[in-house]
Amino acid sequence: MGKGSRTRGLGARHEERRRQIAEALLAMINLHGLDAVSLRDVAARAEVSLGAVQHYFRSKDEMLLFALNYISERGTERVRQSLGQEGQPPRAALRRILAELVPADDQRRAELRIATAFTARSLVSPELAGHLRAGYDSLHEVLALLIRHAQDAGEAPADLDPGRAAAALFALADGLGTHVLIGHGTPETALAVLDEHLDRLFATAP
Amino acid sequence: MGKGSRTRGLGARHEERRRQIAEALLAMINLHGLDAVSLRDVAARAEVSLGAVQHYFRSKDEMLLFALNYISERGTERVRQSLGQEGQPPRAALRRILAELVPADDQRRAELRIATAFTARSLVSPELAGHLRAGYDSLHEVLALLIRHAQDAGEAPADLDPGRAAAALFALADGLGTHVLIGHGTPETALAVLDEHLDRLFATAP
Repeated sequence: MGKGSRTRGLGARHEERRRQIAEALLAMINLHGLDAVSLRDVAARAEVSLGAVQHYFRSKDEMLLFALNYISERGTERVRQSLGQEGQPPRAALRRILAELVPADDQRRAELRIATAFTARSLVSPELAGHLRAGYDSLHEVLALLIRHAQDAGEAPADLDPGRAAAALFALADGLGTHVLIGHGTPETALAVLDEHLDRLFATAP
Repeated sequence: MGKGSRTRGLGARHEERRRQIAEALLAMINLHGLDAVSLRDVAARAEVSLGAVQHYFRSKDEMLLFALNYISERGTERVRQSLGQEGQPPRAALRRILAELVPADDQRRAELRIATAFTARSLVSPELAGHLRAGYDSLHEVLALLIRHAQDAGEAPADLDPGRAAAALFALADGLGTHVLIGHGTPETALAVLDEHLDRLFATAP
């Protein structure tokens, strides 16, 4: 967000370098964990100067924030692309977004490891916590909106509280994702649990 | 576990010191975050020697493991005490255990901050991950067992898969707890979401 204009004209090279550094950072965190990664390592892996890396982040917290923003954009883009076709019902969109929270492949696994590191650090950094909370709040809003759309389309029961139902779905997917990440359960069972919950949620009242 | 025998006889003083160090550690982590806490700080706060602290843990990872074991025991004890009265239906027991994952007061908040730090660190430490996974597996088993009891008592639908239902409840409570911890939602709404889920789960089929 806000960076979109930079991708045009001269900004394209800038965006390419940003992507390059972000990918190097994600790979390093994934391999060695956040604590073991230095700005110098990231510069070496991205094959850019230390100064170029410092343009994007100077501390561990800024590094995490940079990584979190990058993976959020990437996740949003994946959802946008998969929903690009016309005529996607709200439930499919909900399911698509929630599935992003389950580490079903290496890319999502790396992303969710970073999100977990970010969560832990935000507990002792009010600034990081603010960023995280804003992200959670806006994702929650999107989920509630989709549930409202489903209600309008007659897909979901009208007496459902969209905010409450969204909070449950979000927490469930987030919890399942963390469980898979630590090796408690598989992506397959996590997605099955999620689908069951969606089934119950979308079942019209008897 | 395994330490139970030490509480008798001479071991009582040992247990008292262990408790003292654990409380100091929890207070320090809660105040300053895990990264900022040293063994020396813990010794000073617990008013014991550095050697006494080193008897229990020598590294950050051992410190976390010690803290995690301590809070697990404390949580288990709280659940045991609140369920001590005869005639508690399985649903009440389930609810009581799951509510431990929601930071509804300062003590649980401190405990869950530590659990979150532990989760993040276990992603880069296979040894810590093993401990965490074992804890998750056994909690999942307890939840599934209670759901089976509820089915036997006619409280829950017979066609429910206890393992699957336990996985959903566990992930939901865990996710809600993390959300409250980072300031997304309140303990009250989290518990309400949990109760709604239990209501749906325990509703006998139409």
